[in-house]
Amino acid sequence: MTARLKVAYASLAAIAIATGQPAAASEKSDQAKVAAAIRADHDAAVERLRAWIKLPTIANMGINHQEGAEYMRQLALDAGFQMAKVIPTDGVPGVFATLDAGAKTTLAIYFMYDVKHYDPKEWSSPPLEGRMVDRPGEGKVIVGRGAVNQKGPETAFLTALRAFKASGVKLPVNLVLVAEGEEEIASPHFSQVVTHPDVLPALSKAVGVIIPDAGQSVDGQVTLLLGAKGAVELQLISSGEKWGKGPTKDIHSSLMANVDSPAWHLIKALNTLVADDGHTPAIDGWFENVKPLTERQKQLIAADVAAGNEADEKKALGIKQWYAGEDYLTATYRLASQPTVNIQGLVSGYMGPGGKTVLPGRAEAKIDLRLVPDMTKDEAVSKLRAHLAKRGFGDIEVNVSGGYGPTQTDENSALIKAEVATLAAAKISQTMSARSAGSWPGVIFTGPPLRLPAGSFGAGRGGGAHAPDEWFLIDSTNPKELGFDQQATLFANFLYEVARSGTIKR
Amino acid sequence: MTARLKVAYASLAAIAIATGQPAAASEKSDQAKVAAAIRADHDAAVERLRAWIKLPTIANMGINHQEGAEYMRQLALDAGFQMAKVIPTDGVPGVFATLDAGAKTTLAIYFMYDVKHYDPKEWSSPPLEGRMVDRPGEGKVIVGRGAVNQKGPETAFLTALRAFKASGVKLPVNLVLVAEGEEEIASPHFSQVVTHPDVLPALSKAVGVIIPDAGQSVDGQVTLLLGAKGAVELQLISSGEKWGKGPTKDIHSSLMANVDSPAWHLIKALNTLVADDGHTPAIDGWFENVKPLTERQKQLIAADVAAGNEADEKKALGIKQWYAGEDYLTATYRLASQPTVNIQGLVSGYMGPGGKTVLPGRAEAKIDLRLVPDMTKDEAVSKLRAHLAKRGFGDIEVNVSGGYGPTQTDENSALIKAEVATLAAAKISQTMSARSAGSWPGVIFTGPPLRLPAGSFGAGRGGGAHAPDEWFLIDSTNPKELGFDQQATLFANFLYEVARSGTIKR
Repeated sequence: MTARLKVAYASLAAIAIATGQPAAASEKSDQAKVAAAIRADHDAAVERLRAWIKLPTIANMGINHQEGAEYMRQLALDAGFQMAKVIPTDGVPGVFATLDAGAKTTLAIYFMYDVKHYDPKEWSSPPLEGRMVDRPGEGKVIVGRGAVNQKGPETAFLTALRAFKASGVKLPVNLVLVAEGEEEIASPHFSQVVTHPDVLPALSKAVGVIIPDAGQSVDGQVTLLLGAKGAVELQLISSGEKWGKGPTKDIHSSLMANVDSPAWHLIKALNTLVADDGHTPAIDGWFENVKPLTERQKQLIAADVAAGNEADEKKALGIKQWYAGEDYLTATYRLASQPTVNIQGLVSGYMGPGGKTVLPGRAEAKIDLRLVPDMTKDEAVSKLRAHLAKRGFGDIEVNVSGGYGPTQTDENSALIKAEVATLAAAKISQTMSARSAGSWPGVIFTGPPLRLPAGSFGAGRGGGAHAPDEWFLIDSTNPKELGFDQQATLFANFLYEVARSGTIKR
Repeated sequence: MTARLKVAYASLAAIAIATGQPAAASEKSDQAKVAAAIRADHDAAVERLRAWIKLPTIANMGINHQEGAEYMRQLALDAGFQMAKVIPTDGVPGVFATLDAGAKTTLAIYFMYDVKHYDPKEWSSPPLEGRMVDRPGEGKVIVGRGAVNQKGPETAFLTALRAFKASGVKLPVNLVLVAEGEEEIASPHFSQVVTHPDVLPALSKAVGVIIPDAGQSVDGQVTLLLGAKGAVELQLISSGEKWGKGPTKDIHSSLMANVDSPAWHLIKALNTLVADDGHTPAIDGWFENVKPLTERQKQLIAADVAAGNEADEKKALGIKQWYAGEDYLTATYRLASQPTVNIQGLVSGYMGPGGKTVLPGRAEAKIDLRLVPDMTKDEAVSKLRAHLAKRGFGDIEVNVSGGYGPTQTDENSALIKAEVATLAAAKISQTMSARSAGSWPGVIFTGPPLRLPAGSFGAGRGGGAHAPDEWFLIDSTNPKELGFDQQATLFANFLYEVARSGTIKR
């Protein structure tokens, strides 16, 4: 998840508000027992993470689909879930598990057990080895595919649960786990898991959903993400075959004189999708359901901009100016609030060096749409189709390859309050991000029918998601950064805060 | 040349008009001597062709540039040219040779000594072997790269010259030869050969220029091509770097919200280049110098259409209709008369299967422009640049990778009259094509400063230019098709017709 989730967000240095009541003495003692059990389990926990890294599930390469699901199921049982089962889907299976602690409050946990593919040649140690290496200024890290995205943080969470069991401490909340093996391909079948007749009723009891995350930046700060744009990926394909005009294959370019061109047909269609500025979506009715930013969202974004460095950001992006030469604040409002129609790629005819005298029979634009509340995926796709059809481009294929609507979680929800309280108690500085311009499929939880608060949560450090030498901090030498044991302990403490906040109306 | 030249032409069954005066008895006797010498040279001639095939010059692969030019120079000397020299250019060298026969009339000959690249795996015999194989219904053919395009017909022409020498018959015309080694990459430096201070005065004395060709179709007919559209190949490149807006590299697609997109910038620019029909050029002033078809050209095209098979042609092209649903005749007029702006290819961002969340820093459209008289290459390119600049697209690179203007030769010129007379005397049926929609750089000869009639000429058969198993007919078993000796004899006879027609005003 988090590579997508962390990109280009509009976060902010929020005012930390500790909302929880003070913990009782018995609770403090229980927490100490759990923390001690976590420390005692350290070496074994790292071995469990290393063993999990050795079994990569890669959705779009057909690698370890069933094996990964079974392994996930066993990890849940070992951590104390009383029931765990594999949920078949039309793609890679999901996993559903429950842990009934007899508590008043239920928390849902979302796991991904798949990883991004990798090229061993680009790595400094074998990607499935899980080698421990020193990272100057941070400490000992484990290097491997999935280390931070997402097996490391997930192992820390499961280790917290094992510590409750090992120390004989009762869990303060009940747990529902849903896991998928297709997160890295945009969760095409995860809604089948969530809406499964056994799963949906269990999830609907939860106060919210988290995916464990190593959420600290290099200065130790944690960003709580309150929302994210939706994203729809699609290909627009113009072809002589579907059009009934132009050639069905590439023909000699001299024929442009008296044969229609599918490539020009696509250009004419694309031209109608954005305004003359090459930027503003011009699809009929596109802004109908767009909610403007609230004052609070603007406040969060403004605080983020105040703390940000515009010059550094522009340099990192390789840009000289924002759209329309707008100032940093306006541009950052726009990043969070504007739905987009982006060209990811163009594919047609001859694509090598120089030229080749063909009139292509096919042209394709790879598009992604970013959606803001209250737009939905279905609305966006049907508006796009209608827009094209109305202008004589109904033959152009709209091939939707994935996507989901926007997600938003109330900062006054029990979940976010528990997160804030947990970080405050641990004296970890936190910020809130109003809405990421990047996307994650949180709408599966935050949208109908569940309408649950949802987001990633956790401290600790890692990096290199989707890249070579992915790493996850195990033994921290930096006082600002939590190591593995402290991360697991933070998750344990979080469960107490959830129990406390759980009675608050979402 | 001829692959480009032969594509998509608007040819026609013309009325053969034999214009030459009857040949004198001495001339008939000389011709018989030359024909006998050609027959006597048969085996050696085939060996010369085979040896030439063994030495491929491939311009864009750096293969045999100097060696090919030297070989060409020696071939000219061996055939009787008194002077032959290599002319250096900024690319592959050219060759210039002269044969002064003390005649009143001078004919120029254009040779290409380069060949298209090849993949031996696709061939049924080694592409440089020159194996003789049987072609059912046609005869013995030689198979090899360059066999028909263009070493076979050129060897037949040189064999005719050798036969004059061998039989002691005086040549009826003086000859000027210009050869290049970059025909297959659109002759980027050939004008340096033609305008060389030694070459230009020699060429300017000629009544016209031919490139020897195996011009017979399967039914034995020869098409005389009177003109061809010009072609300009260019890439339009939109980049954050040149634009000063948008990113200089691919960035995350979520940034589409507040960063400009070079890909959309290109789409907006492309959209202005053709009308809403996705077809008609809309570049400012594009049609200013477009000459309509003459009544004679229309007559030639109409005759061609009458002889053609619309259904077969559509099937071969994979189209259901011509542009705008036009009828066959209108569509064929358009093919010959309309200048075009074609998209050869589109290249931007992610081009693999599915999608990838990037906002590309660069987008490229590969374009070819086809030009008709009296448009010129420079005019077309400068109009395109001005059009883009006027609309705010001045940052888009117009990278011209090659091209030349249209070419046209008067059917009443001495050259065409000599060709018609030669074919008539040989009882070979001929047609005239008003203008090819494909292109060849004839404008180097037909345009300023030379303004010479120019075209390909010859009988005989071959096929597979630019393809595997390229072949050229040596020993014909088909009474409608000329074998090698007859082709060479036709070239010899053609020189007499040129001498006879040479006094006619071009």
